[in-house]
Amino acid sequence: MSVLLSPERVEIQLGERSYPILIGNGLLGEPRHFDAAPAAASALIVSNTTVAPLYARALRDTLAGRFQAVHMLELPDGEAHKDWQTLNLIFDALLRHGCDRKTVLFALGGGVVGDMVGFAAASYMRGVPFVQVPTTLLAQVDSSVGGKTAINHPLGKNMIGAFYQPRLVMCDLATLSTLPARELSAGLAEIIKYGPIYDMAFFDWIEANIDALMARDPAALAHAVRRSCEIKAAVVGQDERETGLRAILNFGHTFGHAIESGLGYGEWLHGEAVGCGMVLAARLSQRLGGVDEAFVQRLSALVERAGLPVVAPALGLERYLELMRIDKKSEAGEIRFVVIDQPGSAAMRSAPDTMVREVLAQGCAS
Amino acid sequence: MSVLLSPERVEIQLGERSYPILIGNGLLGEPRHFDAAPAAASALIVSNTTVAPLYARALRDTLAGRFQAVHMLELPDGEAHKDWQTLNLIFDALLRHGCDRKTVLFALGGGVVGDMVGFAAASYMRGVPFVQVPTTLLAQVDSSVGGKTAINHPLGKNMIGAFYQPRLVMCDLATLSTLPARELSAGLAEIIKYGPIYDMAFFDWIEANIDALMARDPAALAHAVRRSCEIKAAVVGQDERETGLRAILNFGHTFGHAIESGLGYGEWLHGEAVGCGMVLAARLSQRLGGVDEAFVQRLSALVERAGLPVVAPALGLERYLELMRIDKKSEAGEIRFVVIDQPGSAAMRSAPDTMVREVLAQGCAS
Repeated sequence: MSVLLSPERVEIQLGERSYPILIGNGLLGEPRHFDAAPAAASALIVSNTTVAPLYARALRDTLAGRFQAVHMLELPDGEAHKDWQTLNLIFDALLRHGCDRKTVLFALGGGVVGDMVGFAAASYMRGVPFVQVPTTLLAQVDSSVGGKTAINHPLGKNMIGAFYQPRLVMCDLATLSTLPARELSAGLAEIIKYGPIYDMAFFDWIEANIDALMARDPAALAHAVRRSCEIKAAVVGQDERETGLRAILNFGHTFGHAIESGLGYGEWLHGEAVGCGMVLAARLSQRLGGVDEAFVQRLSALVERAGLPVVAPALGLERYLELMRIDKKSEAGEIRFVVIDQPGSAAMRSAPDTMVREVLAQGCAS
Repeated sequence: MSVLLSPERVEIQLGERSYPILIGNGLLGEPRHFDAAPAAASALIVSNTTVAPLYARALRDTLAGRFQAVHMLELPDGEAHKDWQTLNLIFDALLRHGCDRKTVLFALGGGVVGDMVGFAAASYMRGVPFVQVPTTLLAQVDSSVGGKTAINHPLGKNMIGAFYQPRLVMCDLATLSTLPARELSAGLAEIIKYGPIYDMAFFDWIEANIDALMARDPAALAHAVRRSCEIKAAVVGQDERETGLRAILNFGHTFGHAIESGLGYGEWLHGEAVGCGMVLAARLSQRLGGVDEAFVQRLSALVERAGLPVVAPALGLERYLELMRIDKKSEAGEIRFVVIDQPGSAAMRSAPDTMVREVLAQGCAS
C-alpha cells in the first residue's frame, strides 16, 4: 500500500459536540494524529479477540505518551456478543482500573466494538469521552460516524443505546489490509447506499471504480471513505437525533434488519443484509413511482459486483412484516421505509402491506 | 389533608430541554395537569410492588384519555433491585407491547423507580420521552429533578446512567400520606441539605418548622418541596451536566455513598446515609475552616430531629477511604468532597487522608 503523507480531514459540525474524522494510511502509529483526543490520566483501549492481536499494541504504544496509564480490554468478536453481558465487561474493566469521569475510551475494531464502546462511554458515570478507531470499511464509512451507539435486545437490533458523539474518529486505511473479503463487501454496501439517497455522481464514480475498490486500491478506498463521511456529515449535521432527514441513511435497513433478525444476528453480516435490503427498497421505490426498472437493475448489478447478496432469504412474508413492525422507525405499528423519490433523493414513506408482500415475494429465494 | 386548589409550578430552565415541576395535593387524579406530557399512541406506567397497588390505577385512569393504550409494569421494590436485570424488565415490556419512539414512560414511585425509568427512557431506541411522578419526599425534592438517571454496578452506586431530562415532574403531596416514617425522614435529609449549601434562610425556616414537617403538615410540605425544587432548578440550570457548580448538590454524598455501599445497598436508606454524611462533611468543613463547631452542632441537631442517624457505622477507616476513592467525583484517585465554605455556600475540595481519618474516627460508632 502506498503511504499518504498527510491525512484527509472531514469535520462533523454539531456545535459543542463537533469532531474531526481523519482518513489516511498508517495513522495509528503517529501520536500527533491523536492531538484532538482529550487529556486525562488514563485511557482504556477496547478491542476484540480478532483485531486486538493485530493493532492494539501499536495503538497503546502510540498513546503511551498522552496518558499515565493505558489499559486494554478484549471483547469476544461478533454481532452475537453485542449484548448487555459483553457491555458489562467494559464497565467491569473501567471500575476495576479505577477509571474516572475523564478517562478516555478508545474503540478499536468494527461496528460492533464501536457501538458497544460508544454506549459504554455514554453511560459510564453518565458520560466519559471516547475515540473511534474503526478497522473495518463499514465502520469507517458508517457506524463510527454520527454518534449512534447501541446494543441489541433479544427482541430487536440496536434497541438500547444513546446518541453520543466521539471526540475524534481515526480511519486508518492500513487496517483494511487485514479485512476478510466478506467484510470488505459489507462495507461497500454502505458506500453504495450514499449514491441513491444523496449523490448520483458518487454512484457513477463507484460503478466506474468498483473493481479498484474490490482490489483494495488505497487511492480508491481513500476517496470512497472520504466522500461517504462527507455525505454522512452533511446529513447528521442537519439532524443529529434523527427526527427527520437523518433517517434516509437507513435506506435498505428496514428490510435489512428483518433479514438479520430473522436469520439470527451474525448469520448475514449487517452490510450484506443492507445490500440485499437496498435492492428490495429500490423495488418498493419503483412501485411507489420514484425510480424505474432500469434503476433497480443498475443498483442490483452494482450490489452484486460488490460481492453482496441480492436475493433475500425465505423467512416467510408474514414473518418479514412482523419483524419490520418492531423496527425503530415504525410508529403506532405502521412500518416506515426509506424510499428513493428520484435518483439521488430519499424520503420516509409507509406502504400498503400488500405492496410490501409483492416486493418480498419477488425478491426472496423460493 | 387539605386540598390545594391550584398546583404550584417551578420551571427548570434548560433551553430545549426545559420542563415544569407541578406541586400540589391530589394532582394524580386530574388529567389537565398532564397537559405538558407529549402526545403519543401509547404510554407505559412503571411502578413497584409497594406503590403500584396504591396509585397505579388512579394514574392509568387519569391518562386513559390521552393515550390509546396505557400499559403497566411493576418492578420489585428497593435499592437492591436498581440493577441491569430489573432495568431490562422495562425494555422487555416496551418491546413486548410494541412501544415505539414516541411512547411516553411514566415513573411512578421513589428515587429508585425514577432513576431506572429515566435511564430506560434515555436508552430505549436511543431516547423516548418520560414523566416523573415521584411518590416519596426524597424523590420529590431531589432525584426526580435534574435529569440524573442511573443504575448501580456491584462495584459502585449510580455508576451506569445518563443525563436525561423528563418532560414533566408531578409532585402529588397526597401520595406522601402513605409514606413510611423512615422514608419521610430520608426525604428531609435532602431538604435540610439545601440550607448549608445555598440558603441559610431556608435552613432557619426548616429548623422552625421541623415538627410540622415531621407531622406531614401539607402547607409545610408544600413550601419545603417548592423551595427545594427552586434551589435545585437554579443550580441545575447553571450546570446541567455537573462540570462544576452542580456538584454542590452532593453535599454529604461522598461519605453517604461509602456508608450505603459499605453496609450493602438498602441497609440504610439513601437519605439516612446522606443525613449522617452531611454531619461528617460539616466536621470536615470545620477542619478546613469553613464553619465553626456551633454550625456543626446546629446541623447535627436538625438532622437528629428529622429522625436521621448522626453516628456513622463502623466500617473501618481504610474501608471508608477505599470506598470513597471510587466515587464518581474522585479524579485520578483523589477523593473530592463538597464542603461548606461559609454557611449557605459550598465548594468542591480535596482533603488530606489524615484529616478524613480524623473526621471518620470522631464520627463513627466505636
